[in-house]
Amino acid sequence: MKRIPASFLPPIALDYRSNTPMYRQLYDWFRRAIIRGQMRPGQRVPSTRSLAAELEISRIPVLNAYEQLLAEGYFETFVGAGTCIARSIPDDKLSPPAVKARKGLQEIVEKRGPRRTSRRGAALTHLPAQSWLDNLGAFRVSLPALEHFPIGIWSKLVARHSRRPARGIMAYGDAMGYLPFREAIAEYLGAVRGVRCEASQILVTTGSQQALQISAQVLLDPKDRVWMEEPGYPGARQAFMTVGAHLIPVRVDHDGMNVEEIIRRGRDARAVYVTPSHQYPMGMTMGATRRMLLLNSATRSGVWVIEDDYDSEYRFGSRPIASLQGLDTDERVIYVGTFSKVMFPALRLGYVVVPKELLAAFSAARDAADIFSSTLYQAVLTDFIREGHFARHIRRMRMLYMDRRKALVEAIQCQMGDMLEIIGAEAGMHLVALLPAGTDDVAVSRKAAQKGISAMPLSTCYLKQPARSGLILGYGGANAHQIHDGIRKLKMSVESR
Amino acid sequence: MKRIPASFLPPIALDYRSNTPMYRQLYDWFRRAIIRGQMRPGQRVPSTRSLAAELEISRIPVLNAYEQLLAEGYFETFVGAGTCIARSIPDDKLSPPAVKARKGLQEIVEKRGPRRTSRRGAALTHLPAQSWLDNLGAFRVSLPALEHFPIGIWSKLVARHSRRPARGIMAYGDAMGYLPFREAIAEYLGAVRGVRCEASQILVTTGSQQALQISAQVLLDPKDRVWMEEPGYPGARQAFMTVGAHLIPVRVDHDGMNVEEIIRRGRDARAVYVTPSHQYPMGMTMGATRRMLLLNSATRSGVWVIEDDYDSEYRFGSRPIASLQGLDTDERVIYVGTFSKVMFPALRLGYVVVPKELLAAFSAARDAADIFSSTLYQAVLTDFIREGHFARHIRRMRMLYMDRRKALVEAIQCQMGDMLEIIGAEAGMHLVALLPAGTDDVAVSRKAAQKGISAMPLSTCYLKQPARSGLILGYGGANAHQIHDGIRKLKMSVESR
Repeated sequence: MKRIPASFLPPIALDYRSNTPMYRQLYDWFRRAIIRGQMRPGQRVPSTRSLAAELEISRIPVLNAYEQLLAEGYFETFVGAGTCIARSIPDDKLSPPAVKARKGLQEIVEKRGPRRTSRRGAALTHLPAQSWLDNLGAFRVSLPALEHFPIGIWSKLVARHSRRPARGIMAYGDAMGYLPFREAIAEYLGAVRGVRCEASQILVTTGSQQALQISAQVLLDPKDRVWMEEPGYPGARQAFMTVGAHLIPVRVDHDGMNVEEIIRRGRDARAVYVTPSHQYPMGMTMGATRRMLLLNSATRSGVWVIEDDYDSEYRFGSRPIASLQGLDTDERVIYVGTFSKVMFPALRLGYVVVPKELLAAFSAARDAADIFSSTLYQAVLTDFIREGHFARHIRRMRMLYMDRRKALVEAIQCQMGDMLEIIGAEAGMHLVALLPAGTDDVAVSRKAAQKGISAMPLSTCYLKQPARSGLILGYGGANAHQIHDGIRKLKMSVESR
Repeated sequence: MKRIPASFLPPIALDYRSNTPMYRQLYDWFRRAIIRGQMRPGQRVPSTRSLAAELEISRIPVLNAYEQLLAEGYFETFVGAGTCIARSIPDDKLSPPAVKARKGLQEIVEKRGPRRTSRRGAALTHLPAQSWLDNLGAFRVSLPALEHFPIGIWSKLVARHSRRPARGIMAYGDAMGYLPFREAIAEYLGAVRGVRCEASQILVTTGSQQALQISAQVLLDPKDRVWMEEPGYPGARQAFMTVGAHLIPVRVDHDGMNVEEIIRRGRDARAVYVTPSHQYPMGMTMGATRRMLLLNSATRSGVWVIEDDYDSEYRFGSRPIASLQGLDTDERVIYVGTFSKVMFPALRLGYVVVPKELLAAFSAARDAADIFSSTLYQAVLTDFIREGHFARHIRRMRMLYMDRRKALVEAIQCQMGDMLEIIGAEAGMHLVALLPAGTDDVAVSRKAAQKGISAMPLSTCYLKQPARSGLILGYGGANAHQIHDGIRKLKMSVESR
């Protein structure tokens, strides 16, 4: 048996003042030396006694390190022959460049295989930076008025469930969600949104984004066509792209998605994504005629309708518009909603109302994605709804957002009336302000982001060449002062672009 | 203009004692009548005054209902000509079968398009029922000792963060996770698991399942080959199948995954999934030689190594084995871990240590999946770790699980020594008990589930024909009494199968 004498041991540097225990430092040192090829298979290591003496430390840490290295197979022992580096360790391991440098870089590169990621992974890496999302300043889209959230009530409910948690709140839960929560959602949707469903059809998700991605996974194969609103919601585009779907833009007009165009083009598609209550981002509401046309056409041609009802709690001029799902007589509609805007985004709770025949697939897809949602917040929100706090909070926020919208419209008209044209119904938590044709809205948004303003460029909502240039301005999270200050900074950003 | 007289109105049934407001009942009634084709486009509706009189109710709810129906486009008005159903409503809408029944069912079926889901969706629907997952009884795999969790300390920390939440805890957070939490994870992994990473490389996920699915999305294209341990972890199989990967089983022997077999077969693959610290489910530990062989071979052939270190906190005989990631000199290893077992499953927090070049893709994939993880628990767990509770809890649980494992082994040897053969290292929270060759372990598990016992059949961990039949028995969540009672019931299940 070939044995290299122990005297060839490279120098061991121990840090006596480190927090890392001595045995661990020794263990790490030996392992590193083996990985780097500084100690070879079969090479003998010093006895614990002589190494301890050499390093002037107690023998205990040396014994512990050797024991661990033996247990993990880096060392081996032979009766009467001491300890050596395990001879089974591959001799041709890939050493880091420092060691093989003399053989030239080329050889090392040749020995390494490719570093391929999926087409999806590669595409995701090339998304441009969205600097307007780096701050939570004025006009951040979808950010609610967190300072008006009834945190006292909420934290009492959190404490109630957290102090003496039911076993179910800590153990594995249902992939579909916490049943009392699903019952509360089904009741709420039936009463307020005209959604017709049973609690068993509710799948609780991590926000509406997960609802969209799971819908995509269940419904779409790579290259399947999906009709998308143009301009439309970038999050939906992302979700459908991750399954390799082929997205086809459909123009949005004063009545929302141009359904007639879908019917005229007549191409085979697997799904249509639509925001009929409050088109994202343009803000119009789809009328009854188009809704029925859309459902009829979907039923005839076998298209799934993914209805994203992301902020319909807030309408200022009229009552909330009933959902498309409630009109559906063919179980064609997958209805998606979220609590991120009505409650707060970090709650990470959304839901999808699933046609009964798709329940098994949605449940299994959720299980494969991340098993289930954390139960605590589901239980707390159930109480929050059942005890009436939810309805009260929505009413209060509706008044607040109506005021904030008014303040924003006035600030724009007063300070930037010649630069911005406001569009969008009196609803939700954002409006679109169109810039003069030809303005680079991304450049404006970048400028604004430098001033701490989060104004999303409209052009990022287009799949194809943007037809309009503008800014999506959220007013949920900004008070009157922040709105005025924000518009002042926005004006500077437009002028200095 | 064609107008159908109002007298043709179908009967309106109002429920005067319902919680649904009167205006809403009227609105719903009209909308339903229109959808069902009971009222036709252009048909005139009664004046609000006459309808109120006819129904013997106040005029207010009628006015409100009409206003809403007008706003949504179901009604239209003409100056001096009253109100009618909007003429633009499609006349050929798909009515429910009841109305068209006289034309025969065939016609209705023909008018409806196909109801196709994705291949993935269809496959997910056909998974067999796993009745052993329907209960949280003795031997439930991965269930920790919830009754020993320091809930007092935990709920105090939850209350601390919940009462006066930082804005960051409620607003949109980072797709990669809450930074102080990522720093705590990176430190913990460096000290305890020999993982070499910076906090910037940690992606916080919803349990390890999401870490696996996001890894699959970033790394794998449909039909890409992945080496899988046989038997292996079904959750990983699910995650890789949802992206359409082609899974190739690699036999597991006494030293874990048979890496030599991979090298011998030499087929091009994109990734390898491996549980080197504690093979799932068989429980052996991969030695240093194979670890290096695996890394060398992966580097040479350009294969990503997905290391799932799901329960390595618990080793009873020796110190925790250092991770494969720490041996990697080529940034090939994607290291996955979870807090579900050390803390509790409903926490839904896991993590993945991502090679730097893949960070942008992982972050974007997480954003597309569900944007980010709820911040509260991340902040609470950070404090739990920083204040030393985490290390203390792990130490206590290590002692407890060692006792529980001992109790389970004794109960099996005493009651079922002739039927079950125990395998797996003294580590983790489960062991595998092999059944006599030819036993239908799924049938045994089903029988046991009827008795409230959650024993997972080993055969479900095989991709191909199961080589062995057995049961995976978790002992984390069962005390000595439950273990003895559970083995008694399990014995009955084996005998009565």
